[in-house]
Amino acid sequence: MRYVVILAGGSGTRLWPLSRKGMPKQLLPLINGKSLLRLAFERSLALAPAQRILIVTGAAHAAEVAVQLPELPASNILGEPTGRDSLNAVAWAAAVLHATDPDAVIAHVTADHLIEPVETLTAVIETAFDLVEAEPRALVTLGVVPTSAHTGYGYLHRGAEIPGVPGAHQVVEFAEKPAAEVAEQYLASGEYWWNAGMFIWRADTLLEQLRLLLPDTYASVLALAAEPHRISEIFPRLFKTSVDYAVMEPVSAGRGSATVLAVALPVSWRDVGGFSSLAEILPADEAGNATSGTVTARESSGNVVLNAADGSLIALLGVDDLVVVRTADITMVTRRDRTEQIKDLVAAVTATFGDRFA
Amino acid sequence: MRYVVILAGGSGTRLWPLSRKGMPKQLLPLINGKSLLRLAFERSLALAPAQRILIVTGAAHAAEVAVQLPELPASNILGEPTGRDSLNAVAWAAAVLHATDPDAVIAHVTADHLIEPVETLTAVIETAFDLVEAEPRALVTLGVVPTSAHTGYGYLHRGAEIPGVPGAHQVVEFAEKPAAEVAEQYLASGEYWWNAGMFIWRADTLLEQLRLLLPDTYASVLALAAEPHRISEIFPRLFKTSVDYAVMEPVSAGRGSATVLAVALPVSWRDVGGFSSLAEILPADEAGNATSGTVTARESSGNVVLNAADGSLIALLGVDDLVVVRTADITMVTRRDRTEQIKDLVAAVTATFGDRFA
Repeated sequence: MRYVVILAGGSGTRLWPLSRKGMPKQLLPLINGKSLLRLAFERSLALAPAQRILIVTGAAHAAEVAVQLPELPASNILGEPTGRDSLNAVAWAAAVLHATDPDAVIAHVTADHLIEPVETLTAVIETAFDLVEAEPRALVTLGVVPTSAHTGYGYLHRGAEIPGVPGAHQVVEFAEKPAAEVAEQYLASGEYWWNAGMFIWRADTLLEQLRLLLPDTYASVLALAAEPHRISEIFPRLFKTSVDYAVMEPVSAGRGSATVLAVALPVSWRDVGGFSSLAEILPADEAGNATSGTVTARESSGNVVLNAADGSLIALLGVDDLVVVRTADITMVTRRDRTEQIKDLVAAVTATFGDRFA
Repeated sequence: MRYVVILAGGSGTRLWPLSRKGMPKQLLPLINGKSLLRLAFERSLALAPAQRILIVTGAAHAAEVAVQLPELPASNILGEPTGRDSLNAVAWAAAVLHATDPDAVIAHVTADHLIEPVETLTAVIETAFDLVEAEPRALVTLGVVPTSAHTGYGYLHRGAEIPGVPGAHQVVEFAEKPAAEVAEQYLASGEYWWNAGMFIWRADTLLEQLRLLLPDTYASVLALAAEPHRISEIFPRLFKTSVDYAVMEPVSAGRGSATVLAVALPVSWRDVGGFSSLAEILPADEAGNATSGTVTARESSGNVVLNAADGSLIALLGVDDLVVVRTADITMVTRRDRTEQIKDLVAAVTATFGDRFA
């Protein structure tokens, strides 16, 4: 059977104070009142019924996930007591699904981006499901066809097309987020895709790679699937690492028993990671102020103004190029060119006030 | 008997959104948790017991005044249904006090400024009380000895000392707020004082001037004192004008039956009218940020940051010379050099949202 596992871990401080420890970015109602997780879930329903969709998220966010996805059975939320990076999220899901369905085929999707058209994403994943069902040893990774020399994404260096599998390529290299010059070279070469962090594989094939490459992790996730009550003992001791580093790279280099395939995902792929990217998807007034919620901007231009506090007003007079955010308990004001340092601001706030405003 | 009448009318939008329609500047807890009205009341207690202190304020603010001044008998609050400028405030108070005490002597004080030392103010008013008790026909006005060429105050042009009344001067002219150059000339001449808007006189002497100069107002305030229930009929029909224009100027020109005397008030006299002047009385951090309430400012300087919303945080990152104010329902952001236009911002907000945020 086919399953979709939505990877919705991570918190992220880049949208603070909209995002908070208890309300990470992917749960915020950013897009016409819907969260990125809700949008990912709705996309996933085109691939599998709710009963076969799992969410891997922080345990602290499980309750909010259940509220936002009322169609989802409660047991389909896997709450991580602590973040152990992407490998353990996919490994845990594989072990859980394999325990009840030895033929489980899983599409791992993310909840960090706006993706259009949805139909293309669905079609590509359907094709990848077909591919994995035909080639049980395939580990498929999706590569977004890049439209810019983005320095915020990892890249896949695409190799030769796999003989007999049209559209599927070898992967020469999994490259980290590049410097601007390097990103330009990647884009110009035509040989690189953005690493979508989306995977399609059989649960048993992934588990077999773990057994070969990371036997401790393999044993731990099997134990966790069999005895879920041991989670607080087992989970924190998992080795923290990424899928790409721990599985995809060594397997593509021949150290494993599977085949890594990269498939093109020709969609519009927009990060909603920070205020600048968020501003691009918000309506703007004639002075270029991107706003959300109740806002009055007078003789002000180029601001990003987000009012998430019901019943309140943000009023600007004579200011330009600021980011102003109001929530129920925080007002944050910075410049658009300083948003990369918001994490330092959050650290300073936490140093002073503890977790109260974190 | 001696009475103190605190003139606490006016609303003012220059401190919006701290000040609001229902919470004017003089009722805000700006100074170590105390309002300017509360400070004026405490100063007045050195001159008269609470039973002989009256407050003239907007009827809409009477309840808040009662909360802030629990020592005050409720009947000592005169609530104006609509603002009719300073003449009608002092005329109403004179009529009310004269009705029960024909020998009432009144000191009118304001609640708009920070005044130090308080002892000097008290001593000057005590001296003025003595003067009026010795010279029943005197109308005494106080002039603050200026320390700068302030363009935000009216000025008194001091004339010759009154023979036989040491320290009391004639007034040559009551001058409106001057242009900067004119203010410099005033300061250089040594002949001008800031018009404090504080007066000491016998109630019957003021009423007699009204009878001579403004007989309609005279009749109206006597009727109002005799039949307080007619306030909503009488008050709005009073002719709107200032004490200086309607009484002090014509009487000092000989059109009346009293003598205008100006007495020096050698105190520190600080306006708290706008955010810039408010910033001067707030503590500042080493980067020159003047703050009130819970605030974190990182790599930011010269800002005025006022957090009046309990339990909340204002966090700044990399911004300079802004004014940032957070209240329970409004966040306002402007530049320090734009605060004079806040009234226009309030007008724009009111045009959009009605009185909701006014």
